[in-house]
This record gives sequence, C-alpha cells and structure tokens, in this order.
Amino acid sequence: MCRSITGNGVRDTLRVLQRHIPLTVHEVPSGTPVFDWTVPNEWNIRDAYVKNAQGERVIDFRRSNLHVMSYSVPVHRTVSLEELKAHLHTLPAQPDWIPYRTSYYKEDWGFCLSHRQLSELREGEYEVCIDATLAPGHLTYGACYLPGASAAEVLVSAHICHPSLCNDNLSAVALATFLARELRPVRQRYSYRFLFAPGTIGAITWLCLHEADVSRVQHGLVLSCVGDAGHLSYKRSRRGNAEIDRAVHHVLQHSGQAHDVEDFSPYGYDERQFCSPGFDLPVGRLSRTPGGRFPEYHTSADNLDFVRPEALADSYATCRSVFDVLEGNQTYLNRNPKGEPQLGRRGLYGAIGGQAGERVEELALLWVLSLSDGSRSLLDIAERAQMRFDTIRAAADALMAQGLLAEVAVTSRGNASAPP
Amino acid sequence: MCRSITGNGVRDTLRVLQRHIPLTVHEVPSGTPVFDWTVPNEWNIRDAYVKNAQGERVIDFRRSNLHVMSYSVPVHRTVSLEELKAHLHTLPAQPDWIPYRTSYYKEDWGFCLSHRQLSELREGEYEVCIDATLAPGHLTYGACYLPGASAAEVLVSAHICHPSLCNDNLSAVALATFLARELRPVRQRYSYRFLFAPGTIGAITWLCLHEADVSRVQHGLVLSCVGDAGHLSYKRSRRGNAEIDRAVHHVLQHSGQAHDVEDFSPYGYDERQFCSPGFDLPVGRLSRTPGGRFPEYHTSADNLDFVRPEALADSYATCRSVFDVLEGNQTYLNRNPKGEPQLGRRGLYGAIGGQAGERVEELALLWVLSLSDGSRSLLDIAERAQMRFDTIRAAADALMAQGLLAEVAVTSRGNASAPP
Amino acid sequence: MCRSITGNGVRDTLRVLQRHIPLTVHEVPSGTPVFDWTVPNEWNIRDAYVKNAQGERVIDFRRSNLHVMSYSVPVHRTVSLEELKAHLHTLPAQPDWIPYRTSYYKEDWGFCLSHRQLSELREGEYEVCIDATLAPGHLTYGACYLPGASAAEVLVSAHICHPSLCNDNLSAVALATFLARELRPVRQRYSYRFLFAPGTIGAITWLCLHEADVSRVQHGLVLSCVGDAGHLSYKRSRRGNAEIDRAVHHVLQHSGQAHDVEDFSPYGYDERQFCSPGFDLPVGRLSRTPGGRFPEYHTSADNLDFVRPEALADSYATCRSVFDVLEGNQTYLNRNPKGEPQLGRRGLYGAIGGQAGERVEELALLWVLSLSDGSRSLLDIAERAQMRFDTIRAAADALMAQGLLAEVAVTSRGNASAPP
Repeated sequence: MCRSITGNGVRDTLRVLQRHIPLTVHEVPSGTPVFDWTVPNEWNIRDAYVKNAQGERVIDFRRSNLHVMSYSVPVHRTVSLEELKAHLHTLPAQPDWIPYRTSYYKEDWGFCLSHRQLSELREGEYEVCIDATLAPGHLTYGACYLPGASAAEVLVSAHICHPSLCNDNLSAVALATFLARELRPVRQRYSYRFLFAPGTIGAITWLCLHEADVSRVQHGLVLSCVGDAGHLSYKRSRRGNAEIDRAVHHVLQHSGQAHDVEDFSPYGYDERQFCSPGFDLPVGRLSRTPGGRFPEYHTSADNLDFVRPEALADSYATCRSVFDVLEGNQTYLNRNPKGEPQLGRRGLYGAIGGQAGERVEELALLWVLSLSDGSRSLLDIAERAQMRFDTIRAAADALMAQGLLAEVAVTSRGNASAPP
Repeated sequence: MCRSITGNGVRDTLRVLQRHIPLTVHEVPSGTPVFDWTVPNEWNIRDAYVKNAQGERVIDFRRSNLHVMSYSVPVHRTVSLEELKAHLHTLPAQPDWIPYRTSYYKEDWGFCLSHRQLSELREGEYEVCIDATLAPGHLTYGACYLPGASAAEVLVSAHICHPSLCNDNLSAVALATFLARELRPVRQRYSYRFLFAPGTIGAITWLCLHEADVSRVQHGLVLSCVGDAGHLSYKRSRRGNAEIDRAVHHVLQHSGQAHDVEDFSPYGYDERQFCSPGFDLPVGRLSRTPGGRFPEYHTSADNLDFVRPEALADSYATCRSVFDVLEGNQTYLNRNPKGEPQLGRRGLYGAIGGQAGERVEELALLWVLSLSDGSRSLLDIAERAQMRFDTIRAAADALMAQGLLAEVAVTSRGNASAPP
Repeated sequence: MCRSITGNGVRDTLRVLQRHIPLTVHEVPSGTPVFDWTVPNEWNIRDAYVKNAQGERVIDFRRSNLHVMSYSVPVHRTVSLEELKAHLHTLPAQPDWIPYRTSYYKEDWGFCLSHRQLSELREGEYEVCIDATLAPGHLTYGACYLPGASAAEVLVSAHICHPSLCNDNLSAVALATFLARELRPVRQRYSYRFLFAPGTIGAITWLCLHEADVSRVQHGLVLSCVGDAGHLSYKRSRRGNAEIDRAVHHVLQHSGQAHDVEDFSPYGYDERQFCSPGFDLPVGRLSRTPGGRFPEYHTSADNLDFVRPEALADSYATCRSVFDVLEGNQTYLNRNPKGEPQLGRRGLYGAIGGQAGERVEELALLWVLSLSDGSRSLLDIAERAQMRFDTIRAAADALMAQGLLAEVAVTSRGNASAPP
C-alpha cells in the first residue's frame, strides 16, 4: 500500500486496522484551513516507471513504491539521462538501498533508486511516467476512542503517512492497534484515544478540528520506530516533568534494561505539534532507536527483516506498564498520621520482632503511610522510595483494605493530577 | 537488668540514670489508648529455663536475659524436643551468638540460644519454664528537661527497651545522659528535653500525652548505636532540610572524618514516630553503624567489647558541636549595607595592603557582612562560604562588638528559624 | 606615572585616556563622607630614596615607583639599618622582585625592594627621604557615558589606583578604553558607562554620589587582570544567576577555549562594593588569571612582558560577544503557537523531505518557535537548546522578518529583563 499524507493508501491501511479495533475514519476536504496550514490536494498513484530506449522499466514503481518521490506531480515524457538525473535521488553511502523522499508542498516529481541502479544507467533517452493524480480530495485519518470512567484522556498517536517502511512507522501502527485491542475489553479509569494520522498535517488537522476538546488530554504518547532491536528511548514532553514523563521514566528505570530518556526538543515526530506552545500538551515520544539515528531510516532497508517480534513485544509490555502507572497513580491520605498505625494487629506486619532487615512489602507499607499526606501521589512515593510502582500500589491497596488510607480527589492538573 | 518495653528492668535502669541527671519517671497505665495503639500489659520475668531429662538447665535465663524471647507468656510444662524446637530461635550463620527476639503484641513464648547449643540438644523430654507475669501495670519512661532562655526545645531521644545489648542501645542511653549532665550547668538559648523511653510504643505514648506541646520541638535527634567503631552516620528528618539536618551535615562535613548522611526513610528507630506525617517534627537520627547493618546487631555479640570509649567520645563531641551550631545560628542585618564598612579603622583588618591572599578570619568578616541581609542565618552563611560555623560565628561576634550588625528576630520556623 | 588612590598619577593617566574616549574627570574633595568612609587626603610624591653612608641611592624611587609604599607619609632623617629594616618590604621567595605595598588608612612610611637588594645592605647609617605630601585635596576618577536607546545601563569598571603594574590593572584600563572607543560610534540598545576609579574608595565614592541612579545598572562587569596568558575566568555577581552571569557563561561555554566560572565571594576587586547587600547590583568580574593567583601579582614582575597582545585581544572579543548577547537578548511571542507554522512556504525550510537530520539553522527556528511563549528570552532559548546565541538570534531575526514573532516588552528586572 502506497501510503502518503493523503490518498487511498491511507484508506486501505485504516481498513485493515478496522478488522482489529473499532476505528472511525475521518475525511477532511482539501483546502480546509488548519491553523497556519491548508489541507493539501489528495495524491493518488497508479503506476510509475522509467523506461530505457529498449522499453525496459529500469525504475519500476510496481517493484517498490519507494521508487517514486511521494506527492510527485504526474509526468509523462522523454528526457535525456542528464535531465533525468536532476530528478533522481540515491544514497551513495548505501549503494543498495532506495531512499524515501517527499515533496508535499512544492510541486515537483522525482524517482528514488539505489545508487547501484543509478550507476548502471547509460547515456540515452528515457521515457518517464508517473501516472498520479494530485487534485482536490480529502485528508484521511482514523481514531479509536475507548471511553473510561473519566473523560480525561490518554492520547496515543502513530503517523500513518509512510509507504513501505516498517519500523518507521508500521511498527507503531501495529503497536497502537494491539494496545487498543487489549485495553478495550476492560473499562479503564481514563479514556483512551488512539490516533492514526499522517505526520505533521494530520496532527495539525486533528488539533485544529478538536481544539475545544484538547484539554481533556492529560497524558499522551507519540509512538514511532518501536520495532527495531535497539533499546527503548523516551523523549520527554515540552513540560519536562509531566506525569507521563515521570511514569515512562519510572517504568524504564525499573525495567532492568538499557534505555534512554532525553529532554524535549522541537525536532522529531508529531510531539512537535502536540507540544507546540499554544497547546503544550503532556505528550512524550516512545521509540526504540529514534528516527534518523539508524542507517536504515527512510530507506528500503527499513523492511520486515529490520523489525523484531521480541522488540515489538517489549514495546507493548512497556506501554502497558506505563498505562498501569497512570491508572494507579492516585493520591491518598493517611488516616492515622500521628505515629505509625499498629500494622501487626492487622496482619500486615511480622509478629516476631528483632530480626534485622525489613521485607520490601512491609517497607512499602511504611513509605505509603509516611508520605500519604494528600500532597503526594503513589508515583511520587515510588520515586522517593526508589521502589517499583506496583509494589507501592499493592501496599496502598492493602492499607485501603484496612481503612488506613482515604482517597484524595486531586483537582489540579499538576504532578499528582488524577482525572477530574 | 532485663529491660523490655515495660517492667522493672526499665525502672531499674532509669534509677541508675537518676544518679547522674534530674530525671522524672512517668508511669502510664496498661490499657491507655495512645493514638492507634494501646499501652500493653506490663511484663516482668523472674526466671526461665529449659531443663533436660537429667534436670540440667540447658537454657538458663540467669546466664543471659537474651535467652527468653521478650514478652514471652508464662509457661511451665514438659515438651518433646520437636515441640520445643518450634519455640527456639537461633542464628545458624553465627553459631555462637544468641539472637534477640520479641513478641510484644502476639501472645507467644520462646527461647533464644546459640545454634551450637541447639545442635547439642538430644531427643527427649524437656521441662520448659518461664516464670513471668504479663498483667495490667504500667509503661515507664523517663524525661529530663533543662529549661533554656526560650521555650523552644531540642529533643534528644534514646530507646531503653532492649535487654543486655550494648551498642543498641545502652551506648545512646549513656550518651544522652552525659549530654544532659554537661549541658545542665549552663543555661542555653534553647530548652533541652532528653527522653528515655521504650521503642515505638514509648515514643507514641509520649507524643500522644504531649500532643499539645510537641510544636515546641524545633530540633531533635534520635540517638542509637553510637558506640561502635564505625564512622558517624546521620539520617535526615522527613523534612530533609530542617535546620537540624543542615547543622549535623555541617558538623560532619567539617569533622575531617569519614561519615554518611542519608535521606529519611520510614524504617528505623523512633524517628519513625517523631517524623510521622501528623507530626513531621524536625528530628533526625545520629548513629555510628546504624542498627541492622552490623553482624552483632540484636545478638549477644553486641556487648561491652563491641563498644569503644573513643567512639562514644567522638559521638559526644559531635553532639556538642551540633548543639553549638543550633545555639549560635542567629540571623543578623548588616547595618552598613552600602559598600563595605571600613574594617581597618576598627582594627578588624590588616593595615598594610597589597599582600596576596586573605586571612580566613578576615574573609569570614566579609562573608558575614555580604550575606547578613536579614534573610540568611549564620549557618546559611557558613554553608555558602564553605567555612566552619565557629569561624563564621566568631566573625559575627566581632562585628556585633563593633556595632556593625543588628540581630534579627526570626519568627518563622523556616531554615533561619530561631527560638521565638 | 605613580598612581595611587588619589593624586596626580591618576590625573595624568585619565588625561591619556581622554586622547581615545570622551572621559569626564570628577574631583571629590578630601573629607567628603561616603557611606562608612571618608575621602582621604590627597597623596603626591616627587622623589624618594634611601642613601647609604657614601651618599649612594641604594633605593631610588626614580628607578621604580614601586620602591615607595603607597601613601607613605613624608620623612627625611637618618636611621640605623635596624630601624630602616622595620620599614622595608621584600619578597624572600622571589628575591629579584619588588613587592607593591600600601598603607592608605594608617599613617606610616615604607620602602619596597628586592630581597637581593636588602641582603646587600650593610650595617651603618642611612639617609631616608620620602618627598611626598599627604594633604587635603581630591579623589579623582573618570567616567565615559555612551547613551543608548534606553537609560538602562551596562556598567564597565576598571580600577586605576595601582602604580607601575601592568596586568593589574593597566590591562583592564586599556581594555575598557578600547571597548568604549569601539562601542561609541554605533548607538546601542543599552547605555554604557565606563568607570575608571581607584579601588574600593573610588567605587564607594561613585556609589555614594550616584546612589539615586544606581538602579539603572542592569548589567555590569568589573575588569581586572585581563592581559596575562592564562585563560578567561568569570566570577558571578552576588545574585548568581543575573543576566550578565548567564551571558558571560554562555559566551565562555561556546568559546571552545578553557575557562573558569566561579561563584561570587566577597573578596576581590570592586565587585565587592557593587555587590554589597545594600546595592546587590548584577555586576560580575571578568579576569584572565585573577589577582592573587599568579606569582607576579603585586610585584615588579607584573610588567609589560607579562601581558600578551593576543590575550588582550581575546579579552576584548569576549567582552564584545557578551555585549552582543545583552543587546540581542530580547523576548518574543510566537504568533502561530498552535502547531508549527508552515516554514516551507516561507522559504525557511528545505522543500525535499525525508532526509535524516536537520540543519542547525532550521533547528534554531524550531527552538525559537517552541519556546517563544513570552516568558523566555533568546538567551533562555539558547541555553535550553544548547546552541550559540548568535544562531538563535539569527533565527529570531528570520522569523521576525516573516511576521512569525512579536516582540514582548519585559518590564521586570528578572532573567528575561530588557531595558524599560
């Protein structure tokens, strides 16, 4: 499927996702103004080739949809090799790979090919054909909304505009789809919104059309390049210490695996739009090797071989753990704040005293009691105690069951924020 | 003396302390509710043994009071070795040492013995006798109050519930006693309260009975394990940057000796109670090797040989230095804040100029003048200048004598807090 | 020229500077009270010597003006070697160098000489003569004011009281003079005030006489020892994070050269007075090897050989870069804060997409757009982006030219302060 920022490749892709999750497909007409941008004309391509004097397709769209620069305008004529070369893109350093190139906002046409292919082209006339249309139509995106106990939302976004590239970004499209499928059966505390839209213009369009509702987004993740063999890498939201930033950091820290956490920068995927200063949403980006930092990036080598099932599974498990933190990150009040409550008579504490050390579960009880003064969430406590969130969460559950904690309604959208 | 959380062992111990300091002994009846707890029945023991078939005392309380699990209920009967073993506690990894065990809040009985002793017990019948009483009585604690110029208090607390263990916690009982004895003759700026009470229930009882007055505690130290050969170790209060935390850190930093400063955690000695969120008192804990981190902890090897006189002396000197910081940590206002005052004509500065460098005493004068804007205490200044507190204190005295500083009354309980 | 804190040496020096810049010379009468100080009597010296019994000048002011302790009272008498020695100053560790000594505020006289000279003095009578006057007169200082678009000032100060020493402080006198000369032709955003005054008493006098206007000083640099071969060293203002502190730090960080940045301390040059708590001006100190840290300091070895032209040039270039940051450090508002504006159609962004990486100029555009929310200055943005200020400044200029930014008037004197 030859996906681009508009066109049937996107529609076909969303149809595949609809087999797995309830996905609403939205069509936005070309020409619609969206903030500083305008929804572009729709691009569709049927065929494209370069034929040599012998009539052989020396570059053939049917072999790889990367061969055509995305959004190339239609062309059909005969050109010299020299004129052709001005429209050819190769990667001399990776002579066997076809690069991926686009020209969305400047009318142009081009072919991408391996440098080896280029070196085999002989002087002569070539028939160039791009059988495409670039005309008023629609921009297409898909959204899957899973209502939870609260209208407060977790946004998960994957761009869907790249043609046959696998890590960037089919890996994230697949991951988001499976997350939605697995979260759907159980009603969560938060509502979840999964967005499958073309990069940049798709996110801007969605933000523009949903401007009034965007404040519901309390946490968000842009997923990209989540299937390669590299370790996980998180890029913080522009806020830098949003709850999502701390939740992902916590999960990665306790994963026992190598990982990176880096500060926000305004270059990257659609976190650029969600974190633009007019929105400044608490949206970070989860990747394995981030786009642009692996040689296969935006080339024909970003194919199915480059993506590993176990890496995708690890990305999936990490997202689930992050959601567990968000879902469980409540704030409590110790109802017996003066001195410790007597845990022993409630069966929460060992009966025989004097032994050195403390079980981690008992220590977690003490941390939750010590810090649950209404101003700290369980994630705050887990961070301070340097313990796993699930251990702290289990301690809070045990204390709640004994009536030792009261839940606190947190209304602010600060660090300890919970759904309204 | 067989101390426990109640009983005559505690009373006998407090009587010894009364030979050195004016100690008031308080008796709180069993059954008194104290926050989430209830003062337990009083436990007293006269004798205990396990006799073999030959009538020999194979475990004998008269040889070590550690042999009986503290708060064991009375028992006198004949049991098989197998049944007996269910009530025996040993340390297989330290086969010559008797462990220390308690069962305060679950009715049970038990004996503690060396693993070697256990291995020598042969099959057969054993006569088990614990001649103890567990009945309504009192919880006993002692307090020594030294009134100062202000009602604001420094609290010093040592637990007094352990039987024949030396570092934990006779070392701290002795240290607190000598601190009280040496501070008493000279009226201090602060009042000092020394508390000798059983662990946990004693602190909770004291907090409950003095709830209205607890806010007088402006600084506090829990002393424990202050006699072993290890270096000093300070555990911050829950607040983390209370004046006591900074004062101890400062003294240790300038001691020229190895030391540790660690953040608060809710596991440990009675700082757990003083720092519980309903009180959150500025109370830290000073130890040498903290409880639980030396192999002799809670065993018969924590005896007089384990405690070193020079270590006790160093702990004593450190506490005195900490009190000196607290006593001297006042806040001043530079009365000539525009440009430097002319120190030379006041005899505070060398007359011949041009020499490189500056004497540390002159530098201290400049630091005090530069930072005494009414918002910084002398400890703030010492920290900023990275100079010893006593050097800064002496500079302030010299400047005060010249009328260059005015004392500032600080009413808040913030970092620069002084007694009201 | 025998400069001191008063006298004709200072006047002669200022006259030389007037050949280069428009310098106003101010005369403040002896006896004028200036805060805690009083303007001292004026000291002038014509000749001084020590003659041996043979009538030979064994110490001769005409050979080096360092030979006389500055502010020595007049003396003319015959003394024994022993009595003479009580008035001699040498440097035993540097036997060939003459030290520099002063006695401004205690009436005394003295000679400075090399230790080798001292060792050659034989027993006997010596004729001592200091032909000086210490009498009511004036304290002299010079100021060069370059008015800018705003009355807000950048203060540049160099002390001018040292006799024939070169790095300390003729280097800074020369640097300040050339900065004034080069800034003068172009009207700047800020006004600039260059101050050439004797150390300590000169700064105090200036502060006292201009107390009402001092709040105009928004940034300041004390220059001293800016000509030696050592690397640049900046001492922060007492505030610690004033805009000048951050501007100098930024320039040094991106200089690609070794450098030091140290926190404020109340010992040093006239930053002591400008940063005294009653003023607390945002004035830091720029030096190469700071005074007191090079062996030649305050000796005859701090001569023209010790100062390097290329070091002076580097100090000059650094100051200019710092002024460029201050001048250009404005605050903007992104006028299209929702999503990114479409930079491509404005010619600010490459047309062909898909290539890995981003040009630093494009990245700078994105940083300025992302962070220009009215609360961050361009220096804030450069720090956050870890990019050179001039790159960020150029990006802001390009965005301004496209109407994508609006300038924000910042009225507070905080980090993002601009002239009122």
